[in-house]
Amino acid sequence: MSAKSYNKITPDIITELKNILGARFVVYDDSEKLEPYSHDEIAEKAYAHMPDVVAKPRTAAEIASIMKLANRENIPVTPRGAGSGLSGGAVPLYGGILMSFERMNEILEIDTENMIAVVEPGVITNDLNNKLKDDGLWFAGYPMSLESCFIGGNVAENAGGGKAVKYGVTDRYIIGLEIVTPEGNIINLGGKIVKNVVGYDLIKLMVGSEGTLGIFTKIFIRLQPLPTGRVDLLVPFKDAETAIKMVPTIMTMGRIIPTAVEFMDQLSFQTSYKYLNEHLPHEDAGAMLLIEVDGNNADQLEKEYEIIGELCLNNGAIDVFVADNVTTEERVWKIRRNIAEAFMVYSPVQSLEDIVVPVSNIPKILPELAIIAEKYNVLIPCYGHAGDGNLHATIVKKPEMDRDAWDESLPRILTEMYAKTVSFGGTISGEHGIGHKRKQFLGQVLEPATIELMKRIKRSFDPNNILNPGKIFDI
Amino acid sequence: MSAKSYNKITPDIITELKNILGARFVVYDDSEKLEPYSHDEIAEKAYAHMPDVVAKPRTAAEIASIMKLANRENIPVTPRGAGSGLSGGAVPLYGGILMSFERMNEILEIDTENMIAVVEPGVITNDLNNKLKDDGLWFAGYPMSLESCFIGGNVAENAGGGKAVKYGVTDRYIIGLEIVTPEGNIINLGGKIVKNVVGYDLIKLMVGSEGTLGIFTKIFIRLQPLPTGRVDLLVPFKDAETAIKMVPTIMTMGRIIPTAVEFMDQLSFQTSYKYLNEHLPHEDAGAMLLIEVDGNNADQLEKEYEIIGELCLNNGAIDVFVADNVTTEERVWKIRRNIAEAFMVYSPVQSLEDIVVPVSNIPKILPELAIIAEKYNVLIPCYGHAGDGNLHATIVKKPEMDRDAWDESLPRILTEMYAKTVSFGGTISGEHGIGHKRKQFLGQVLEPATIELMKRIKRSFDPNNILNPGKIFDI
Repeated sequence: MSAKSYNKITPDIITELKNILGARFVVYDDSEKLEPYSHDEIAEKAYAHMPDVVAKPRTAAEIASIMKLANRENIPVTPRGAGSGLSGGAVPLYGGILMSFERMNEILEIDTENMIAVVEPGVITNDLNNKLKDDGLWFAGYPMSLESCFIGGNVAENAGGGKAVKYGVTDRYIIGLEIVTPEGNIINLGGKIVKNVVGYDLIKLMVGSEGTLGIFTKIFIRLQPLPTGRVDLLVPFKDAETAIKMVPTIMTMGRIIPTAVEFMDQLSFQTSYKYLNEHLPHEDAGAMLLIEVDGNNADQLEKEYEIIGELCLNNGAIDVFVADNVTTEERVWKIRRNIAEAFMVYSPVQSLEDIVVPVSNIPKILPELAIIAEKYNVLIPCYGHAGDGNLHATIVKKPEMDRDAWDESLPRILTEMYAKTVSFGGTISGEHGIGHKRKQFLGQVLEPATIELMKRIKRSFDPNNILNPGKIFDI
Repeated sequence: MSAKSYNKITPDIITELKNILGARFVVYDDSEKLEPYSHDEIAEKAYAHMPDVVAKPRTAAEIASIMKLANRENIPVTPRGAGSGLSGGAVPLYGGILMSFERMNEILEIDTENMIAVVEPGVITNDLNNKLKDDGLWFAGYPMSLESCFIGGNVAENAGGGKAVKYGVTDRYIIGLEIVTPEGNIINLGGKIVKNVVGYDLIKLMVGSEGTLGIFTKIFIRLQPLPTGRVDLLVPFKDAETAIKMVPTIMTMGRIIPTAVEFMDQLSFQTSYKYLNEHLPHEDAGAMLLIEVDGNNADQLEKEYEIIGELCLNNGAIDVFVADNVTTEERVWKIRRNIAEAFMVYSPVQSLEDIVVPVSNIPKILPELAIIAEKYNVLIPCYGHAGDGNLHATIVKKPEMDRDAWDESLPRILTEMYAKTVSFGGTISGEHGIGHKRKQFLGQVLEPATIELMKRIKRSFDPNNILNPGKIFDI
C-alpha cells in the first residue's frame, strides 16, 4: 500500500449511516457481531481483518449515499456477499465500512419468455436454480459452493464450477447489471438483451473485478433449458498422463463436450476414500477421471456415455463405472467433493490453490509439484477441473510439521508453484481470484505494463481508492 | 471532437516509417492506392476519409515502433482489418497513418490437444475454419462476412453471426491476446488457458473495443468440435408475433437451443424472392423463421427438428419446409442472405441498422418501425437474428425520394428508431458497433456516467488519443 491512509469511523459517520439505513442495519462496537464479517472461507486468521462497522443496505440509492459519504470522509468500503470466497476478497483489510448484501436477496423477476432472471446480489445461487426448476430453466455458470454463495459474489469473482467444460462460467450468463459506482453514481449496463456492442464491455469488466470497480445491485442472468438427464462415469487410469489425454480425445474423437471432467490424483481419491470409508475397486489406480454428460434424450445420452466409455477403455482406462441414477451419481461425486474436507481432517493448515495450465500440460506439472512437495516436506494433492486445466493443487501442512516452519515455507512454496505454473503457460487462479491472498504474487504472472493498465482502470473508476482497497493490487 | 488536432505527416515521418517497415510497405502520395483504405463496407461516401499514409507491418515490434513514433509526433493511427465493417470503425477519420494487417495473415498454430488456434489478426475467418475441418474442429463465433473478414476485425468488433443463438459470438472464444498498447508496449494476456480470473478481464475489454484500446497481434481462439450434421427449417407464419413467440417455445418447451433462428418480415422475404426469382408456397405469409439445428447424431438431429416442426405447427405455423441436404439448405439460406443485396438493387441508398431488443419485444417494435417508415416515406424491412433479438432494420430510400430529403430525414429516422429501441429495453447495435456512424446517438442509449467511465478507460489506455480517434465517442 503506497502510503494511502484512511480516516477513522467517527460517531458522526455512524449517525449518518443510521440515517441512511435505519439504526437496525448498522452494526458497530460489538466485536461478537462484527467478527463473522472479518473473514471469508480461508481458515487462516492471518488473512482476516475486523470491520469498524457493518452496513446492511436494502437499495441502490442507500448504497449510493454510503459511497458518497465514504468518498467525502475517506473511509474504505468493502462489499461482501456470503463470505464463501477463497482469496480474502470480502475481507475489510483497512477496517471501515463492511457492506453486506444479506438484505438484498430478492429474485426480482423470472422472465420465461426471454429466458432471463433478474436478481439482487444477495440471492443464494441455489435458491435461484430451485425456483427455476418448474420452468425447466437454470443458471448454468455457478460454482461448487452454490448452496451458500450469493450471486453478487459469483459475479464479483467470475465464479465457475464443475459444469464449466460445457457451460462456461458466470461471465457467459451476465447480460445486464445495475451498478453503484465507487463515486456513488447508479448506472445501468445492458439488460434483457443477449447481444450488445455499444461501447466498451463494462459488464464483462465488472465480472471478476472482485468488488473493486463497482457494486452490483441488480443482475440480469441469461438462463438455459435445464437438461433432463445426466450420467456420470468414474474412470480409473494407471497414471495422470493417460487420464488427462482423454480430455481432448473425448472432444475431438468423440465430438462430445462433456458437462464436467474432474480429475483426482492418487493421493486425493485415496484420502477421500479413507475419509468416506468408501470401497471401490482399483484403489491403487494412478489417477481417476469423473466424467459427466447431460442432455434431454435418454437414447442420445446412452450413446454419448458409451462412446466416452469405449474411448476411455481403448486409451488406457483400467475400468469404467457408470453412474446413471441419483444414488450412484451421488456416490461418485461424493468422492470428488469430499477431497478438501478429507484433507482438512488430516490437517487443517492448508493453502487451497486453483492454478490453471493448458490441459495438455497437466501431466507435465504434476511431477514438478511432487518435487516441490518433497522439497518442503508438505503434501500437494492435485484434483479439480481437468476439462478446464484448473487444478486444486492444495498445499497441506503435515501434522508433524512445525508451525513456524510452515509459515516460513508457504510463501516460497507458492512462489515456486506459481513460477512452474507460469512456465507451463498457465496462470495462478482460475476461480478463486487474487483478493489479498495472492496479490504479492501478481507480478509473477502479469507483465508490469499490464498491471499498470489495470491500476489505471481502478483509478478511473475509483479515484479515491475507497472501494475494496488492497485487493488484487495496492494502488 | 473537442479541439484535439493532430500534426501532418511530414517527409521525415515517411522516412521513419520506411525505416521501420521497409519502403515497399509504406504507401503514400498515391490516391488511387490509398482510396481503398478510406472506407469500409458502408457505401455512403459521407462516412469515408482518406488516410495520409498506409503502413503494412509484419510484426508486433514494428507496430510498437509505429505507435511510439505516432505518440511522439502526435499522428493518429487507425487499424484496419479487411474493411468489412459496417460502422466506419476502420476509417481514418483524421487522416494520418492507416495500419493494415493484410501481411499479418499467418495461422501460427493449431493445437488439437488443447483445441486452441493461435492466429495473426489478418487471417481470413473462413481460412481458419477450412484449415480446421480436417481436425474436426471449428471457430464457432464468426460473423456472416466470414469469407472476407479478418479475425482481428472480428475481435475488434466482437462480431457474431447466424450461429450465435447456440454458440455465442466472438468474445466467448477469445482466451488470449498479444497486444500492442496505444503507448507502444507489447503485452500478453491469457493464452492457452480456458479459465483465468487474475486481475481485470482485459481480454474481454479488448474484444469489441473497436480498435481504440489496443492492436491485437496474436489471437488465441478456443475451438469446438465441428458438428457433422445440420438441418434447416423454413417456417411461414401468419404474422411476426406468432413467429417470434416460437423462439422461447423451442427452447423451454422443446428444451432445444437451435444453432440459428433467423427472422424475415414479409417485405424482406418477398423482396428477396423477387430478386432471386424464387418461388415457394405461402408467399403471402406475414413472416418467416429460418431455424437451424446441428449435431453429430443423425437420429438425434431428426428427433430435434421433428420436435421443433411439431411445436411450430401447434403454435400457428402455416407450414414447415425441411431442408436436410446441401441443396435445399442452400436454397433456404439464400433467401435470408440475399435480402440486403435485393434491397441494394431496389435502392442503393440505405442505412443498415442492427438494433437489439428483448426477443419478446420484437413483435412490439415492428409496428412502431412501420409507423416511422410511413411518416418519412421510406422502407424499413426487418430481418435478422431473431433468436438474439437482433434485427437488421434497414432504412431504405425509395428511388423516387429526393436525395436532400433523405439526407435531412435520416438522422431523424435514426433518432426515432433508436428511441423506440431503447424504450423497449433494447440497444442500438448488436453486431456492427458504434464506429463513427453511430457515435452521435450514443447518449440516447448510455447514461452520462457510463460514457464518462468509458472515456476514462480510453484515456487510461491512450493518453494522447492517438489510436483510432473519433470512434465510439469524441474525447
